[in-house]
Amino acid sequence: MERFEHGGDIYVHAGVLDFSANLNPCGMPARVREVLRDNVDAYAVYPDPHCQALTDALAAYEGVHREWMQATAGATDAIVRLVQAAKPRRALLVAPCYSGYEQALEQVGCQIVWHDLRREDGFALTKEVLERIDEGIDLVVLANPNNPTGRCVDAGLLGTCLEQARAAGALVALDECFVELTERAGSSALVADNKNLVVIKAFTKTFALAGLRLGYAICSDAELLARMAAAGQPWAVSVPAQLAGVACLGEHDHLERSRRLVAAERARLRASLEACGMAVVPGEANYLLFEGPTGLAEALLARGILVRSCDNYRGLSDRWYRVAVRTPQENDRLMAALQEVCA
Amino acid sequence: MERFEHGGDIYVHAGVLDFSANLNPCGMPARVREVLRDNVDAYAVYPDPHCQALTDALAAYEGVHREWMQATAGATDAIVRLVQAAKPRRALLVAPCYSGYEQALEQVGCQIVWHDLRREDGFALTKEVLERIDEGIDLVVLANPNNPTGRCVDAGLLGTCLEQARAAGALVALDECFVELTERAGSSALVADNKNLVVIKAFTKTFALAGLRLGYAICSDAELLARMAAAGQPWAVSVPAQLAGVACLGEHDHLERSRRLVAAERARLRASLEACGMAVVPGEANYLLFEGPTGLAEALLARGILVRSCDNYRGLSDRWYRVAVRTPQENDRLMAALQEVCA
Repeated sequence: MERFEHGGDIYVHAGVLDFSANLNPCGMPARVREVLRDNVDAYAVYPDPHCQALTDALAAYEGVHREWMQATAGATDAIVRLVQAAKPRRALLVAPCYSGYEQALEQVGCQIVWHDLRREDGFALTKEVLERIDEGIDLVVLANPNNPTGRCVDAGLLGTCLEQARAAGALVALDECFVELTERAGSSALVADNKNLVVIKAFTKTFALAGLRLGYAICSDAELLARMAAAGQPWAVSVPAQLAGVACLGEHDHLERSRRLVAAERARLRASLEACGMAVVPGEANYLLFEGPTGLAEALLARGILVRSCDNYRGLSDRWYRVAVRTPQENDRLMAALQEVCA
Repeated sequence: MERFEHGGDIYVHAGVLDFSANLNPCGMPARVREVLRDNVDAYAVYPDPHCQALTDALAAYEGVHREWMQATAGATDAIVRLVQAAKPRRALLVAPCYSGYEQALEQVGCQIVWHDLRREDGFALTKEVLERIDEGIDLVVLANPNNPTGRCVDAGLLGTCLEQARAAGALVALDECFVELTERAGSSALVADNKNLVVIKAFTKTFALAGLRLGYAICSDAELLARMAAAGQPWAVSVPAQLAGVACLGEHDHLERSRRLVAAERARLRASLEACGMAVVPGEANYLLFEGPTGLAEALLARGILVRSCDNYRGLSDRWYRVAVRTPQENDRLMAALQEVCA
């Protein structure tokens, strides 16, 4: 079996403490667990293909028309459907970024134009990206915050990107899978005035529902959304995913608590990583990217801790790692192991 | 909202007795319900992208190498992935058949050649299909049993189709989603000697797991299977689907009991439909296709019973209906309503 290229592969490394997947450290809300346990009989029948209850709840949560909402089997399903629906010929990706974009684009034979983020800029997106958004580009993929860097996109720069993309006739896919766990507002409100914007979000990280596969796309181009719905099976979102999604959206307190924990623990983890001599990217997400010694992942794995080796990201080397921000106790274990390894 | 074109839309018609979706009338095995209830905490983390435990269990159940097995998010996901991986230019479909084949083929711009099954033949597949399998065809899609006709493919004719397809350089996709609830053996054993055969199966109907989205493809062409795995997201099969799948495969008694019930109730339902003056196709599956009066579906819906109107199947008209074979008590309700309507 080939090595799995993403984080979270706890099935190969059984029993480890997993810092390689970036889930909400407060876990799944208790009420959602209850709903999942109490509705098992409903899993026998086909899911609602139109996800009506979930779509209504999502539209209210995001403050957009329900017609602009498409529920999907995780954010990656949204990306695959968008690419299948839009069939871009040339797409602009930033590096480093989530490999799922490239994989989806390869399926439609799309040429990829890379905009390399620079270490000197702390991997922030700068206005130099604008030079790449021209009439040769059909699709621009940005992430707010970016994975693995954790850097958010400046709101002014995002606005200019959208304008320039519109002028060039290009779509902008904005991956905001992690935004709910930052202290930034998401960009859903921008879809009303930007028909060429597709915001992609997920329950995976926000509510620790990765095992259920639930995400969504928001776009005011109803025709594009309809093509996304047709690009794949009609029952993509399972019954437990729909039920859990509706239940999650009422969990404001859980989310607020999670956000505060992430902010506090990220600061603590960053300070600790820097004290160990790591060069930490100033990310704003529930994970941190840093440069450290080669072989660190193996040394931590030997201590029962799985981190994400970033050597298969374009623009990063085998000295780069990504760690999730977890609970205080779990972060203590990571920091103790790091101190041991670095001593 | 447009009318949903498949069966099973109990979300629009709340509270009805649903004969429009073809699930195992014995429902989900009790042990599987238990597993789903007891493992909710595991739904927080990413699914195993390689579905290792499920793949091992499936390979043992089907008696094939594990390398020939690809778990998917339902049979329709397998069909979509096969079409994306093979990108056929001309595909042969029989009519009537499940509309998901055509939808998947449209996504890759594939031309469809139709072989119309004939009412005079009871919609059985006959050797005339062989005339259509020539070098212009890249993919032949057959179903055993066919949905909505319920007719199984003669084993000898299937062998000749496979040979002729191989000579023509065509793949054969054989949809056996419903075969486990018939009294026929499935065709998984044929993949060893037929590299151009992809058998597609599902837990949806066999174990009443439609809400979880779980199916699989079996094929001895490992390179094609790898392309199918790449054609979509890596975490397509959710944690509950993987856990339920493994649990289902130990439920031989449940399946045997279901098979016996389906056979007995199908015979009873068929006799009753014929007594009401319907022309019933001699299907072997857990559903029956019949011709009756126009407006029958509406009349039954007014009595709280949902059946599948087949007017959107190529080759059928608004006089055709499909009903699932359900439990004796439920079938009694259908038969009583039918007698009322036909009186």
